[in-house]
Amino acid sequence: MPQALDGSTICAISTAPGAGGIAVVRVSGPKALDISSAIFSKNLTRDHDRSVVFGRIIDGDNIIDEGLALVLCGPGSYTGEDTVELNIHGSTFIQEEVIRLLILAGSRLAGPGEFTQRAFLNGKLDLTQAEAVADLIAAEHSGAHRLAVEQLRGNFSREIGELRESLIEFAGLLELELDFSEENVEFADRTKFLELIDRLLERVTSLADSFRAGNAIKSGVPIAILGAPNAGKSTLLNALVGDDRAIVSDIAGTTRDVIEDTCVIEGTLFRFIDTAGIRETSDVIETEGIKRAIEKASSAHTVLYMLDSSTETVESAEQKISELNLDSGINLVAVWNKCDLKPAPDSDINGASSIIKITASETEGIEEIKDLLVSSHSIKESAGSLVVTNARHFEALVNSKESLKAVKNGLIGDIPTDLVAIDIRATLHHLGSITGAVHADDILGHIFSHFCIGK
Amino acid sequence: MPQALDGSTICAISTAPGAGGIAVVRVSGPKALDISSAIFSKNLTRDHDRSVVFGRIIDGDNIIDEGLALVLCGPGSYTGEDTVELNIHGSTFIQEEVIRLLILAGSRLAGPGEFTQRAFLNGKLDLTQAEAVADLIAAEHSGAHRLAVEQLRGNFSREIGELRESLIEFAGLLELELDFSEENVEFADRTKFLELIDRLLERVTSLADSFRAGNAIKSGVPIAILGAPNAGKSTLLNALVGDDRAIVSDIAGTTRDVIEDTCVIEGTLFRFIDTAGIRETSDVIETEGIKRAIEKASSAHTVLYMLDSSTETVESAEQKISELNLDSGINLVAVWNKCDLKPAPDSDINGASSIIKITASETEGIEEIKDLLVSSHSIKESAGSLVVTNARHFEALVNSKESLKAVKNGLIGDIPTDLVAIDIRATLHHLGSITGAVHADDILGHIFSHFCIGK
Repeated sequence: MPQALDGSTICAISTAPGAGGIAVVRVSGPKALDISSAIFSKNLTRDHDRSVVFGRIIDGDNIIDEGLALVLCGPGSYTGEDTVELNIHGSTFIQEEVIRLLILAGSRLAGPGEFTQRAFLNGKLDLTQAEAVADLIAAEHSGAHRLAVEQLRGNFSREIGELRESLIEFAGLLELELDFSEENVEFADRTKFLELIDRLLERVTSLADSFRAGNAIKSGVPIAILGAPNAGKSTLLNALVGDDRAIVSDIAGTTRDVIEDTCVIEGTLFRFIDTAGIRETSDVIETEGIKRAIEKASSAHTVLYMLDSSTETVESAEQKISELNLDSGINLVAVWNKCDLKPAPDSDINGASSIIKITASETEGIEEIKDLLVSSHSIKESAGSLVVTNARHFEALVNSKESLKAVKNGLIGDIPTDLVAIDIRATLHHLGSITGAVHADDILGHIFSHFCIGK
Repeated sequence: MPQALDGSTICAISTAPGAGGIAVVRVSGPKALDISSAIFSKNLTRDHDRSVVFGRIIDGDNIIDEGLALVLCGPGSYTGEDTVELNIHGSTFIQEEVIRLLILAGSRLAGPGEFTQRAFLNGKLDLTQAEAVADLIAAEHSGAHRLAVEQLRGNFSREIGELRESLIEFAGLLELELDFSEENVEFADRTKFLELIDRLLERVTSLADSFRAGNAIKSGVPIAILGAPNAGKSTLLNALVGDDRAIVSDIAGTTRDVIEDTCVIEGTLFRFIDTAGIRETSDVIETEGIKRAIEKASSAHTVLYMLDSSTETVESAEQKISELNLDSGINLVAVWNKCDLKPAPDSDINGASSIIKITASETEGIEEIKDLLVSSHSIKESAGSLVVTNARHFEALVNSKESLKAVKNGLIGDIPTDLVAIDIRATLHHLGSITGAVHADDILGHIFSHFCIGK
């Protein structure tokens, strides 16, 4: 029995903190029915499985509340244990009283995420699904929510499980060879094995690569706003997020810090990064700001390059853009601003994938920018394919990739089987750590400490 | 059918606002099962009454969440209507999505207290019980909670109902006399009737009088702290509530405003009122403060009169206390402070029911004050007798008392039966308005507008 399943019965308030119409107190563990019955006016038994019982919460002769008891017997419950959910009136006083009585009756207060941890330890969820529960509760926009639901459904776990299974099969054959190492036999077909390793490498790499998109969906797609001083970058930021987030003035160089703000557009979270204007300057603080602006741009998925149509030409724009030396993977959109002062030229700009003409101060053209961002970032990421959103999974996938490469080099380079077997075991460990097929207690503790209490 | 029962199905988030492990969304009305089924992966029917169904919240092909549906069919539900309670994951995004889907499926968002209002209109609760539900949710300490539970149990309603019934019986006989007024008969025995009115008057008066205690339990027993400037009143307040609520200094006259703070001692809420020190002064603001201090003292249940043992004598104390001209119903406790500087005299003080010696700055003797307050205020009010806590009930009781007096005067003064009948009808109206046996829509609207949404 895993350490955390200590035979205790746990309880916690599972609804949001504070007063409300209804609060839910959850009790789970081998004595959940007895302990709940001790504070309830009716005796709750396994006969009540999946039923709703109306009764009173009692403290001896005192009535604390009237409410409902939901009986969910193990293993069919969320935790896999006998569970009672008490739906009571949501005053903070009643909530605290019920917890106090449940503790007096023999349960203990649950730690953060302990219900979900028990679900994991009882095999109701694997680790990625348990993590998805936390993501689901934290999701504040539809992009993050969709990814959490996908992960909760277990498709990612299944894929990782399958990759691992196929490797275990071959690993078994290799271990067999090691047992018969005196006889120098080969049970595992090296050509087929190489094919498998290549397939695994490709899949693991593609999953690891999906983290860039997954993390962007979860934490916001990073969009950097770049351009010369006073081109209207902060005005654009304010127009996009609909708020006076950045200080705007006519004085070039107003923004020195990197200012970030997020906003949800059609269900996708964007993280806009307003930067210091890029120019030659002797101001030390401004120079540092410009250095950070260019760094930020290199981690953005799209750069909105602001051009002041009243002062800039296509030639000057092209030169500035080329001086940025941006990675070719970054989508650069040229944004002609102040088009009310002087119409922008119609020509293409080298280095820019699209050109948009706006008057940021009048929020003219802002919708066009939003449409462009939504079409370039949200649609292509909802293709139903698996997306990694968790840094822990990403790290394990990168480690798996390195081990798989070592396995491949071993096979090609004719390294002794026992050394190859070590790298295979490492790969199995890394893949298994994702779903929790292998796990260490300290990792579990770390994962569940990020949950809220009551879940 | 009452106006508010418009045949609609209502929905709302019933748990506290914000993110939590679990949130409860409640759906109630004739189409609650159909509407819930439209967004749930399983079809919910009356066969599921009182059962818990595990399934998925769906938006067409999209999965929004996994959760439990509690089916509670009318008339056995809280509202008396078919009700579904969806226990879902508590992210704000999911909560909002579920409400959005329920509205699209044909329900509407519930107004404040609308579920409880329906319970009232469907005869599941009377008005005092409905009000008790709001009190129960708002109760933050055991005193207020106990009163709300008592009221929710319906003992107060039953008593009011019985008083009203006994009056209705006699009223019926009187009305009969009016029908036969030509014949000058007497169906109602005037002596017995007078006895009944006296009994009713006594009971209504005692209930109305209980409001002082009931309101104190609910809103806090008012305790005024009075005394000369720099006697240590603010230091005592801070020591009692365990917080630096009032600014304390050695300068006499530091406190000019009336400062209030509450604290719960052994389940009873006390409302401490720190006041300006009472002395002859030409300072206009301070004079106003002293005037308010004495006003506040007259509405307190107990006055803690602070005496500086290093400067005050028994004689000076007695003179000051007598100058207050406090109502004899107010419990005055003399508190000798600064007993570390000079021991306080042992003699009794005229006008003080008890004497306590403390050193407020060292919190010496504070427990003794708390014990005294608890014993004088909490115990005698928990005698199990009915206590009125609601200002609306109090007003109706006072009105009933006035009408009953008019009835009595009419009977004694041999006023014509038709005029006495008017006062009886007024009494029946006032008593009936308490439980909602008679009610106007605007009063209902007023009562339920103070509820939270979702209850």
